[in-house]
Amino acid sequence: MKKNIITISRQFGSGGRTVGRLVAEKLGIPFYDKELVEQVADETGFDAKFIEENGEFSPSKSIFSFAVSQGVACTPNGLSISDFIFCAQRQVILKIAEKPCVIVGRGADYILRDRDDVFNVFIHAGMKERAERIVRLYGESEKKPEQRLADKDKKRKIYYKHYTDREWGDAKNYDMCLDSGRIGIDKCVELILDAIKD
Amino acid sequence: MKKNIITISRQFGSGGRTVGRLVAEKLGIPFYDKELVEQVADETGFDAKFIEENGEFSPSKSIFSFAVSQGVACTPNGLSISDFIFCAQRQVILKIAEKPCVIVGRGADYILRDRDDVFNVFIHAGMKERAERIVRLYGESEKKPEQRLADKDKKRKIYYKHYTDREWGDAKNYDMCLDSGRIGIDKCVELILDAIKD
Repeated sequence: MKKNIITISRQFGSGGRTVGRLVAEKLGIPFYDKELVEQVADETGFDAKFIEENGEFSPSKSIFSFAVSQGVACTPNGLSISDFIFCAQRQVILKIAEKPCVIVGRGADYILRDRDDVFNVFIHAGMKERAERIVRLYGESEKKPEQRLADKDKKRKIYYKHYTDREWGDAKNYDMCLDSGRIGIDKCVELILDAIKD
Repeated sequence: MKKNIITISRQFGSGGRTVGRLVAEKLGIPFYDKELVEQVADETGFDAKFIEENGEFSPSKSIFSFAVSQGVACTPNGLSISDFIFCAQRQVILKIAEKPCVIVGRGADYILRDRDDVFNVFIHAGMKERAERIVRLYGESEKKPEQRLADKDKKRKIYYKHYTDREWGDAKNYDMCLDSGRIGIDKCVELILDAIKD
């Protein structure tokens, strides 16, 4: 079956977002990253920045998050803020995935896991390559780049585990995983396009 | 740097061995799978079948295996059988990796981890696809195919963890991971060849 939806999960600093944007451009289909966050902001009334950061915090465990992770239809009543946002995000992702698109992050691979027309990609890279990239793109900060990366990795891992009960970065959750530091961004784009070609 | 050595780690029943053989054929370079086991048999005096099975057993933890995993030069004196075989295997892998080749399994990805000219691939597939494949290739057995797969996965995971202190199937240990059940064997071969092209 043709793969019309591409989800990109990625380590911070791996260039996965850029890979996703370029794949979408080449295919001439919409790219959802910040656009998705903004739609969730519209739906929930929360600030986009808050939603973006929420995707990287470890939410407190609740029975509701379990229900959400099991795909049970959800309602804002009684949900924690994290779960409420995840719920709204899930609805937005299901809606935008009605048409071909590329979605970066936000657990889209898991939310769309039962669909044969979805192709799930994980982009990662070595610590050295990622550290160089974040300093180049975002500049220096008080924390060393390696520490910033380790913190982000940990948060994404916990968030993903919490909402999916799967291991973030475990190859078996994805159709294709690529080391962008070793392969290069442009080649990653080429390989993804080749993989989904009929 | 040109990638001259390709290591293929794979889930049992994923067709990873076939992928490796085809990549080697297309590149016109040697393919080491049983051939590697036979060389280790020659070096150690153990039976090839015993060595093959040893790669899937959980060896007992010893100070020597730690030394081996750290790349310390090793000697058969005082080593457990598992560690002795791993040592001999390591030497054979280092030797055959002096020239371009494809190596399947046996922790070659870890043993050659510091070399820029090595390209590490992990091939996996869904339980359903793998179960169908092993029944088609090896026939039925007393155990259900899903149980045979789960047993093999567990053994490979423990063996890999023991000798490398890394997680088997964790995307970040490989340059490229592919789901052969979703992508198809021939396309996997094509993608690997494309990825290592200059």
